[in-house]
Amino acid sequence: MILGFDVGGNKLSVCLGNARGQILARLRAPAKVHLGASRALAHLKKMGHEILRSEKVSPRKIAAIGIAAPGPIDARTGEMIFQPNAPGWTRVPLRRAIAEEFCRPTFLENDANACAVAEWKFGAGRARKNLTLAYLTFSTGIGAGLILGGQLHRGATGDAGEVGHQVLDPDGPLCGCGHRGCFEAFCSGSGIARQMRETVHAHPRSLLMKLANGEPKNLRVEVLLAAAQRRDPLALKIFDRVGFRAAQGIGNLVNIFNPHVITLGTIPTHCGKYFFSPLRKYLPLFAWARPLAACRIVPTALGERVGDLGAICAAMIHQK
Amino acid sequence: MILGFDVGGNKLSVCLGNARGQILARLRAPAKVHLGASRALAHLKKMGHEILRSEKVSPRKIAAIGIAAPGPIDARTGEMIFQPNAPGWTRVPLRRAIAEEFCRPTFLENDANACAVAEWKFGAGRARKNLTLAYLTFSTGIGAGLILGGQLHRGATGDAGEVGHQVLDPDGPLCGCGHRGCFEAFCSGSGIARQMRETVHAHPRSLLMKLANGEPKNLRVEVLLAAAQRRDPLALKIFDRVGFRAAQGIGNLVNIFNPHVITLGTIPTHCGKYFFSPLRKYLPLFAWARPLAACRIVPTALGERVGDLGAICAAMIHQK
Repeated sequence: MILGFDVGGNKLSVCLGNARGQILARLRAPAKVHLGASRALAHLKKMGHEILRSEKVSPRKIAAIGIAAPGPIDARTGEMIFQPNAPGWTRVPLRRAIAEEFCRPTFLENDANACAVAEWKFGAGRARKNLTLAYLTFSTGIGAGLILGGQLHRGATGDAGEVGHQVLDPDGPLCGCGHRGCFEAFCSGSGIARQMRETVHAHPRSLLMKLANGEPKNLRVEVLLAAAQRRDPLALKIFDRVGFRAAQGIGNLVNIFNPHVITLGTIPTHCGKYFFSPLRKYLPLFAWARPLAACRIVPTALGERVGDLGAICAAMIHQK
Repeated sequence: MILGFDVGGNKLSVCLGNARGQILARLRAPAKVHLGASRALAHLKKMGHEILRSEKVSPRKIAAIGIAAPGPIDARTGEMIFQPNAPGWTRVPLRRAIAEEFCRPTFLENDANACAVAEWKFGAGRARKNLTLAYLTFSTGIGAGLILGGQLHRGATGDAGEVGHQVLDPDGPLCGCGHRGCFEAFCSGSGIARQMRETVHAHPRSLLMKLANGEPKNLRVEVLLAAAQRRDPLALKIFDRVGFRAAQGIGNLVNIFNPHVITLGTIPTHCGKYFFSPLRKYLPLFAWARPLAACRIVPTALGERVGDLGAICAAMIHQK
């Protein structure tokens, strides 16, 4: 049995699973990152003991522990180097803390990498050797993990996979990273919200503004989706523009990697055809026909389980 | 000893080398692709026999034969699928023809992939395990080969590495591939020539036009370099624009792959500082600081030998 910890920006999650990708039990709690790393660590340990107790599993039955955490990690020392959404979380010795608490072999992996491995082992890339797969999650930012030729690609300093920070237009909108026109600045949740604010600025009496109760801060992807479901032309136009840039960003990956599969999580999964149909319409403007025909571009097959399975996989990557 | 064939768009080359990267002898001939694939094949065979005879090497002393050829190849059948610069070269059974002629184990690889392996084994990436390296050659187009985590990356259908066809600006100039704003449309030899023509159109009495003897068709990179060496402001401005887009294209690769090294061949090697100094100036606008600091971005270390060594490596990739 494998114990998995998923350390998110918004939630902490612990689960019990196995190497066949079954999740036997899970516990969740809000992440309160602002209380600092040591509080979060204490909470994670408590949740770990809680799930073992409630499932009546002895720690000795745990073959390995996997931890999936955001931001860059140091695979050698098992530290989170920093947490982009939580200033002050620097050099957090996550692996050591959990390993010492439970006395089991413990492994730490970046969460997007871990989810990419989960897609490979249990999702859209299942049972293929030499697989090339990109997993992209569209949330506040865009995270990604790359499986290239049947191996997780970490790069020279463990920073690989920042596909959300390919620049699609040097004159484009400012990105959170300080550069202009990143894929993330167009297609992440924050990028989409910015386009919604710009749109309602010109159309203050629009359905979007009504659904946001007149509050620009409520202009989020859920509001966009609700408006699109009522066939609101402004909402559909925003989805069209997002799809155009998503096609550029994803089409570039198709030409660069020639992947078997690209799986898209979170916003694309929630928005379904409103995200995917403009994306598919525009992809041939960017990706070459042969690699595009060879690439399945699909919502994540694992749904809500991808985070937990990622944590389980973090323990499995390092076991041959 | 290894016999290597390099089938280029402009030249045919055959060499004798060894697994330590030494080239013992070489022969070259113009490629006359328009005469068709069977004429070229006959010529290659003749050149192979010629080099063996002149070097007094018995075919039995050849451990393996490597062939590097442009365009997509079918690794299974050993065929060139097509040759982008030579219509009519479709499904050319290059490997079988050479293997039957010399009765030695024969291997075919795409030329950019083969050169990337040469850079890994004998050039800028030498002696590093788990190397991540991109080799880019800027000529009529932009070709590239990717070594990712210590393995050559071919992708799902052998089409990986088209980094020259990442779209940097959907409203940009038309590319030879039919898309708009590809990296190649800005920074290849043809892309640079187009920018030179546009510039002299507005400045017909410029030094560029004088060095081209008043003929727009003579506006090639050599002319641009000659003008830049005389500090011509228009030429320096074109190099600056090319460097900006090269920084976008290469910076994107830095963020996506987090490579140890990116080597640039042909035009960047010839143009030296005129290419590299604007590139280095603009890279921080696109690449993140940490992966950029970890990545050496350098002219190819192999110079003119890269093609021959690529052909030698084509034979070595498949031998463990």
